[in-house]
Amino acid sequence: MKALVYSAVNSVSLQDRPVPTISSPTDVVVKITKTTICGTDLHITKGDVATCEPGRVLGHEGVGIVHSVGPSVTRFKEGDHVLISCISSCATCEYCRRGMHSHCTSGGWILGNTIDGTQAEFVRIPHADSSLYPIPEGADEAALVMLSDIFPTGLECGVLNSKVQPGGTVAIVGSGPIGLAALITAQMYSPTKIISIDTDPTRLQVARDLGATDTVNSSKEDAVARVKALTDGKGCDSVIEAVGIPATFSLCQALLAPGGVLANVGVHGTKVDLHLENLWDKNISITTRLVDTVTTPMLLKMVEAGKLQPSQLITHHFKFSEMEKAYETFGKASEHGALKVVIDVD
Amino acid sequence: MKALVYSAVNSVSLQDRPVPTISSPTDVVVKITKTTICGTDLHITKGDVATCEPGRVLGHEGVGIVHSVGPSVTRFKEGDHVLISCISSCATCEYCRRGMHSHCTSGGWILGNTIDGTQAEFVRIPHADSSLYPIPEGADEAALVMLSDIFPTGLECGVLNSKVQPGGTVAIVGSGPIGLAALITAQMYSPTKIISIDTDPTRLQVARDLGATDTVNSSKEDAVARVKALTDGKGCDSVIEAVGIPATFSLCQALLAPGGVLANVGVHGTKVDLHLENLWDKNISITTRLVDTVTTPMLLKMVEAGKLQPSQLITHHFKFSEMEKAYETFGKASEHGALKVVIDVD
Amino acid sequence: MKALVYSAVNSVSLQDRPVPTISSPTDVVVKITKTTICGTDLHITKGDVATCEPGRVLGHEGVGIVHSVGPSVTRFKEGDHVLISCISSCATCEYCRRGMHSHCTSGGWILGNTIDGTQAEFVRIPHADSSLYPIPEGADEAALVMLSDIFPTGLECGVLNSKVQPGGTVAIVGSGPIGLAALITAQMYSPTKIISIDTDPTRLQVARDLGATDTVNSSKEDAVARVKALTDGKGCDSVIEAVGIPATFSLCQALLAPGGVLANVGVHGTKVDLHLENLWDKNISITTRLVDTVTTPMLLKMVEAGKLQPSQLITHHFKFSEMEKAYETFGKASEHGALKVVIDVD
Amino acid sequence: MKALVYSAVNSVSLQDRPVPTISSPTDVVVKITKTTICGTDLHITKGDVATCEPGRVLGHEGVGIVHSVGPSVTRFKEGDHVLISCISSCATCEYCRRGMHSHCTSGGWILGNTIDGTQAEFVRIPHADSSLYPIPEGADEAALVMLSDIFPTGLECGVLNSKVQPGGTVAIVGSGPIGLAALITAQMYSPTKIISIDTDPTRLQVARDLGATDTVNSSKEDAVARVKALTDGKGCDSVIEAVGIPATFSLCQALLAPGGVLANVGVHGTKVDLHLENLWDKNISITTRLVDTVTTPMLLKMVEAGKLQPSQLITHHFKFSEMEKAYETFGKASEHGALKVVIDVD
Repeated sequence: MKALVYSAVNSVSLQDRPVPTISSPTDVVVKITKTTICGTDLHITKGDVATCEPGRVLGHEGVGIVHSVGPSVTRFKEGDHVLISCISSCATCEYCRRGMHSHCTSGGWILGNTIDGTQAEFVRIPHADSSLYPIPEGADEAALVMLSDIFPTGLECGVLNSKVQPGGTVAIVGSGPIGLAALITAQMYSPTKIISIDTDPTRLQVARDLGATDTVNSSKEDAVARVKALTDGKGCDSVIEAVGIPATFSLCQALLAPGGVLANVGVHGTKVDLHLENLWDKNISITTRLVDTVTTPMLLKMVEAGKLQPSQLITHHFKFSEMEKAYETFGKASEHGALKVVIDVD
Repeated sequence: MKALVYSAVNSVSLQDRPVPTISSPTDVVVKITKTTICGTDLHITKGDVATCEPGRVLGHEGVGIVHSVGPSVTRFKEGDHVLISCISSCATCEYCRRGMHSHCTSGGWILGNTIDGTQAEFVRIPHADSSLYPIPEGADEAALVMLSDIFPTGLECGVLNSKVQPGGTVAIVGSGPIGLAALITAQMYSPTKIISIDTDPTRLQVARDLGATDTVNSSKEDAVARVKALTDGKGCDSVIEAVGIPATFSLCQALLAPGGVLANVGVHGTKVDLHLENLWDKNISITTRLVDTVTTPMLLKMVEAGKLQPSQLITHHFKFSEMEKAYETFGKASEHGALKVVIDVD
Repeated sequence: MKALVYSAVNSVSLQDRPVPTISSPTDVVVKITKTTICGTDLHITKGDVATCEPGRVLGHEGVGIVHSVGPSVTRFKEGDHVLISCISSCATCEYCRRGMHSHCTSGGWILGNTIDGTQAEFVRIPHADSSLYPIPEGADEAALVMLSDIFPTGLECGVLNSKVQPGGTVAIVGSGPIGLAALITAQMYSPTKIISIDTDPTRLQVARDLGATDTVNSSKEDAVARVKALTDGKGCDSVIEAVGIPATFSLCQALLAPGGVLANVGVHGTKVDLHLENLWDKNISITTRLVDTVTTPMLLKMVEAGKLQPSQLITHHFKFSEMEKAYETFGKASEHGALKVVIDVD
Repeated sequence: MKALVYSAVNSVSLQDRPVPTISSPTDVVVKITKTTICGTDLHITKGDVATCEPGRVLGHEGVGIVHSVGPSVTRFKEGDHVLISCISSCATCEYCRRGMHSHCTSGGWILGNTIDGTQAEFVRIPHADSSLYPIPEGADEAALVMLSDIFPTGLECGVLNSKVQPGGTVAIVGSGPIGLAALITAQMYSPTKIISIDTDPTRLQVARDLGATDTVNSSKEDAVARVKALTDGKGCDSVIEAVGIPATFSLCQALLAPGGVLANVGVHGTKVDLHLENLWDKNISITTRLVDTVTTPMLLKMVEAGKLQPSQLITHHFKFSEMEKAYETFGKASEHGALKVVIDVD
């Protein structure tokens, strides 16, 4: 089969690989029909992710058709259309019992990281009964690729952790795909204000189109002053960090209302300053989270009911043979106006 | 009357002051019978608390007897024995409605800070109906002084914020009065381990006497290694910072188990490092809080039922005329083996 | 002034009464501009509410203008436009501290019940600082009359108690004003299905217009079978009883999914059957509640932000001189297609 | 092997049966070392449990040693000492994902009900990875038999559902084994009062010994009046029904404080009266639950830490050959002063 391989730092290539086979009784092998590229894949190709070594087939998102099934799998059979979760979950370890599938002792984020991933014609999925989801007939499968990672991440790490609620005010720092996924899912909880903050006017326009009540270009105006002005001088109840650098984390702290929550979603490579001298008496919380994908069944229901349109984030489509070009486009997302790219594998 | 006044940086003195009078219909004037000194009072005398200027009568803790009552006070009458909350609460502003009395728009921590406090023969208490508590007959009133601030602070900012629960593991960094108040109140939620960490062997012995299952002298051994060894390599579910300096906050981060909470109680004067490069995917929370004293009624019930002994923290007693000596003793707490000192005003 | 008086069982009349005056320092007297009639008012006039005796001025809903202010009121001044809460709250008693204002020991539902109410040119509001809300300039004040009682009731007793959430399924038994208020506010939490059940086809049409995804005429079809068919045989996660008779409460029990909540909103005059032989192992909850109006500030923000249109429930307008006719119309609501009627007092 | 079989209504007998074998890859066969008898077993023998037919090997509680292991079991191996949960859980179905293992679509309460149970020398446990727990070395295994069912039931259905908390008041109606398990586990949450109510003075004495602050013999005094007198006239915040008949459920309703929770634990065979005419405005909840055994890992930690002594409930020991006598003793528990009986199988 063909597979997209992280061949060396700053290099990916389509290579021939053997079709994976069932190696544990709880495995399923899925024939991939659609996949996508994540910001994390770019981090890997830059050599930033120590756990992922050259030679790895990348990708942790996708939909496909069940190709073969391990003997103790009970929920899936050959031919089923399935959504692949970016998190593999054994369902029975200490962390899985607490709903922290991201820390599963024999799973977690392993696809396209410590085991071969979904940017391939076939992929082996461990713990299949708890790591795959059946796709309802007639669904828009390209849209569902957004439910492998980015929608649960925006919702769990951003919206739920920051306790978005009716009547509340929300600031989202960063309007890339993950910030926009948070923006879309935040609206399920009816806040009165969602303020999107970015430095790219195009992305801010997208944010407005997707439901931001206000946008702030932090390279053009004082974001703290603007957000305070929009919130009676208080700051926001929910602040979502969707970038991952010290400057944006610092901005987020300044946007917090007393009693508010700063939910970090960004992947950080260095320590940051925490201004406890200002925050120690402000009754705030700061949260971090690797997505647990516990909301995937709910998101599937919301999509099926027509209450969420994940396809809103898809800007580009590629054939699998154009995978390298897809990486290039997504790698220069700003230049290409790219949010999420969908790759048709079949 | 006599009152302890913050006269200048590094100086307090007993001075003559007029007895306070009712200035708002919701005021009560209380004749103080017992008061105490808080670590925050020491911060003030060092000039660290910008809101509190020289000339201020200090103190935000105490019990006493109602001396006079404003016309719209309904819950108290002359002669009632009362516990004074360190937080004054109007009960009706936006923050009070949410239980965040610490951020009351016409109250909060004002006693002995922006208005005259409890280290005096009399004190005016604003918003008396929601800032005083009736003392049950026969109570140990010296013990109840511990419920003005230190017990609700240890419980709310430490124990509740860090979600101590049955079967959980707790680390408390700092075994001063506030760390010990957290230690005592944590036991109401039946964790299996409470590990107290400090550099003072005397205080660690007190921690053991008050219920710590394990103690760690962080100046003598590697606290992180020891805590990991005590917790199957995981770290603690609840980590309580009860010191307020960058080094202890840094230690707390290293003690956190995946999914854990770091509840900051310490008063910080500078920014600290937050190691998001390690924590971004660890599903943790960090909380801050100025005590809201919402648990005071519950704590009063627990004391009345004999299930809490706040007097365990009292090491010294002074007469009000010895107030300056009391400050000296409490200021060199380690040297004197002092935890909380009680001053008998009458 | 003129006031609508419950003169005798089955009789109300407009009478002359003295304008109320400040009798406690926390009172405000409000000049009523708009009021409405509640189903509870009809119960009173039938003699069903033991606490309310003939001679009482009825009404617990309304908006108006502050006419005079007690000396310890701090949040309102003459001329302020205010929303009156159906619940009077002292903010400081044991129940108010827990957010259970409905059980305030010196308040609760007293307006138009144990003290004179809002169906008058003027009304005295006790505990004004915590029982009135400022109306933002430019607001649709007729719409805000719906926030005195019916919207917080539908939301708190129905939607919040039954834990409506994204992806969940909701059944609402009863499509009168209160069932419809639950229907409207349920949508703030993005359930995938809201099934309205009633016997009146007109009201079911209104339910569809206001957002019900499905409606069931329980006099024409088997409501249990239909709801099961709509929910993969499971029943609903949230079931809201908005009628108040044994038959509807019984229906609600049969509609519950395992793990679901039955939130009772209806006012019941007799005991009902609880089928514990079916429910004991079904992991369900049943809740009751008299509205606490703790959500009023949030609802005001939602209305101000244009995210709720409470005027959707207003079907009729009357002048205050037509008050008796208004009672007649509302008393035969079905016949007149009436939901809520607004009375213009000025 | 020998097994205790429900042979006919009102009859159980020790019979020879084949040793069970692995029939699904997720099975484990356990050699039982200790088991016990549950009140539910008595219900079965009376013919009250329609799902359980004559011929069934009874028992859903026990500890033992792993005898053989299905090919996809990963957490257990031959020779491991294990605790058997009364609830079998697949860990991956819709209900298991929500922590409602009691409603597992291929498990739930099946042991000794719809499949052969633990009152035998060997038992087959389906879904073993999520239905067995490793026993720490050196544990008191007889005590751990109490963790198969009765302790998680008392805790989950009683204590957690009724929201026992520090400072709260608790009434427990019924002082049989399940009521006493609730009494013991309630103390992990530090309520100020636990009032045990029963008609048997011996059991009330046991309740006092196990931590009840007050006991009421409801056949000798007016239980409602007494509980009101003990709670300042309010009733209890948490009321636990641990009997299962209309009279006790009725009593529980009368004991509820405003804002309280009635947690039903008893197994009910008929409908009961619910006095909504009194409760509709009292802000109460009523809960039901079949135990999910989600607290088993926590209970194991509490026992290991010496903070719970489940052996407090064990009054009698029998050899497996005396199984029929054990049923007789437990069937006439009152006469024999029996709480839980432990049967040594090996």
